[in-house]
Amino acid sequence: MHTPDVEGIPVLRPQLPRTERLLPYLQRIDAARVYTNWGPLACEFEGRLARALSLPEGGVVSASSGTSALVGAILAVAGRASEERPLALIPAFTFVATATAAQECGYIPYLADVDAESWMLNPDDLLRRAALDQVGLVVPVAPFGRPVPQAAWRDFHDRTGIPVVIDGAASFEGLLELPERYLGPIAVALSFHATKSFATGEGGCVALNDIDLGERVTQALNFGIRVGRESQMAHINGKLSEYHAAVGLAELDCWAEKHASLCAVAGAYRERLAGTELAPRLLVAPDISSSYVLMFCRSAVEAERIQNSLRQSKVEFRLWYGRGLHRHGYFSALPHETLEVTDSIAPRVLGLPLAVDLSPAAIGYVAEALLHGSGA
Amino acid sequence: MHTPDVEGIPVLRPQLPRTERLLPYLQRIDAARVYTNWGPLACEFEGRLARALSLPEGGVVSASSGTSALVGAILAVAGRASEERPLALIPAFTFVATATAAQECGYIPYLADVDAESWMLNPDDLLRRAALDQVGLVVPVAPFGRPVPQAAWRDFHDRTGIPVVIDGAASFEGLLELPERYLGPIAVALSFHATKSFATGEGGCVALNDIDLGERVTQALNFGIRVGRESQMAHINGKLSEYHAAVGLAELDCWAEKHASLCAVAGAYRERLAGTELAPRLLVAPDISSSYVLMFCRSAVEAERIQNSLRQSKVEFRLWYGRGLHRHGYFSALPHETLEVTDSIAPRVLGLPLAVDLSPAAIGYVAEALLHGSGA
Repeated sequence: MHTPDVEGIPVLRPQLPRTERLLPYLQRIDAARVYTNWGPLACEFEGRLARALSLPEGGVVSASSGTSALVGAILAVAGRASEERPLALIPAFTFVATATAAQECGYIPYLADVDAESWMLNPDDLLRRAALDQVGLVVPVAPFGRPVPQAAWRDFHDRTGIPVVIDGAASFEGLLELPERYLGPIAVALSFHATKSFATGEGGCVALNDIDLGERVTQALNFGIRVGRESQMAHINGKLSEYHAAVGLAELDCWAEKHASLCAVAGAYRERLAGTELAPRLLVAPDISSSYVLMFCRSAVEAERIQNSLRQSKVEFRLWYGRGLHRHGYFSALPHETLEVTDSIAPRVLGLPLAVDLSPAAIGYVAEALLHGSGA
Repeated sequence: MHTPDVEGIPVLRPQLPRTERLLPYLQRIDAARVYTNWGPLACEFEGRLARALSLPEGGVVSASSGTSALVGAILAVAGRASEERPLALIPAFTFVATATAAQECGYIPYLADVDAESWMLNPDDLLRRAALDQVGLVVPVAPFGRPVPQAAWRDFHDRTGIPVVIDGAASFEGLLELPERYLGPIAVALSFHATKSFATGEGGCVALNDIDLGERVTQALNFGIRVGRESQMAHINGKLSEYHAAVGLAELDCWAEKHASLCAVAGAYRERLAGTELAPRLLVAPDISSSYVLMFCRSAVEAERIQNSLRQSKVEFRLWYGRGLHRHGYFSALPHETLEVTDSIAPRVLGLPLAVDLSPAAIGYVAEALLHGSGA
């Protein structure tokens, strides 16, 4: 049986392109002496991403982070919050950045509950349930990379007039496969943080099929400047540097191989738990992004037992979305509706160890700790 | 006589460390497989900057950009704007980012005029002039890298209780030399944008001597998270990645040489214009940062004539701070006092071509165009 290092098994050990894969791009930076502000590499990165996502040229705008991408998309689509409609309706079950971005644009995040099956905001529920007259923005989140279906949100927008921006987070892979995508005025912000399967370290992008809107996103991420040096719209500094564009281009070069490695780890987890009681509750790619391996525990009690077992075995785990935004000290005073589903789900979704080179022995060791904890 | 390329002489041709200088740091990234979130290189970069600035360990916090640094400093020192004190008093004579950062933190920028000699906000003037009862923050700016004297601002803070955060912009060099620095609760945000003499592409830092405050800046730049994954304070994502830290470390390795090259260009400009009428109005290092070579024209009319001459000679120039923040479409509705000095100065400060390798012949060519335009 595999015994882990004294340090145990870390929950995530990212791997981005090694230096030798970066070299040709870095040498181009040396030659051009352009380091940021949409240099040649950032433009090439945007173009290659757009083609990968079957979007028109100009359909991808790079950003310095997933949070910046979301801010850029919000400012371009909805603008800063107004006094009449100060609320941004966001799910409580998400990473902090969703609320951060809304607040950076002047909105007060209003936390709504997610659907028990999809773990997403449900537009039909919102139409029935929530008082929308003060809502100036809705930000559905793609949980763990499950892409947000867009047709229903287009309908929501058509019926309410409320701008919708999707926090696509880790849904890059999902978007590659999504059949109905980029409909109407909807923009999707993606994160390329090191923890994501497709990663640039820090970085992100906005994906859309409305080129004029894309130009507004670029402007929003560049101090509101389109031509010359005059600021003409609400903005931040959210530019992706040429160095991160270099990492992104090399990551695209290696993506097929990296994705296959991550999917192989997902497969090994699935195989190792096959036939056990835990098998149906293991969530891996392609159901979710290959950035994650998740155990969805049956109950909070089981989650507690499994966590104790993992701790004893020095297997690191993580509640990637914490216990819901309303459980963070800083967000606890935010307005919210009842959050029963979030309260029920959030403590039960355990992020398990993942790395491109996580060994079958290590996966077996994690599986044993899981099975031991669940009493299976 | 030197004839420039068909493209003319660009106003700025930055040069950051070449790939071979980055290699040892990039190889450390490969080995550690840590790419952001204060990895080993970012921590080393902060430590080396702190020593360079004679600050205690923990006295420098890295940031993803100068704007992020300013936001992190504002959130740590003053927090988000309150309803009682929604205004951030900032100079009209600055780059857009000063207002951007204040707005990201929820403040309404209130534009004040600068002093005609120092081109900075004057704390004594503000005490006499402005209604301060709605002001929750003051952001003095270091114009073109002239460091903001801090003692007077400490007094201002002591007398008014209003938090002060300095937008140090390009004042890295100035801080290296400043005698009275980092007094009391004052934090200085610096930009390492590619246009700055000391540069990481995108990047910045906050310099201070209050270590607890530094930890709050770090927290503000990391989603409000200090330990675990709980957000506990107002924040953005403003983390400097390991890639940019690598560039910063290599830039520190090469800094003495780069600074000498930039100062040599400044010296060549000074020498070339010596004895002419323009000599007293040429602003170069060490009076300002070696990031800039400026011609401070006598009048708007002369500025117009010199600009026309530069255009005819295909010499690129730039009004680095535009014509004042109130002249930007996006900021034109901001509250402001009379801005006579800004209106007088801004159109007369011309940024001239600069590069580590700008040839004496090119400098001579620029000087001729200047002299021709001024009628000297």
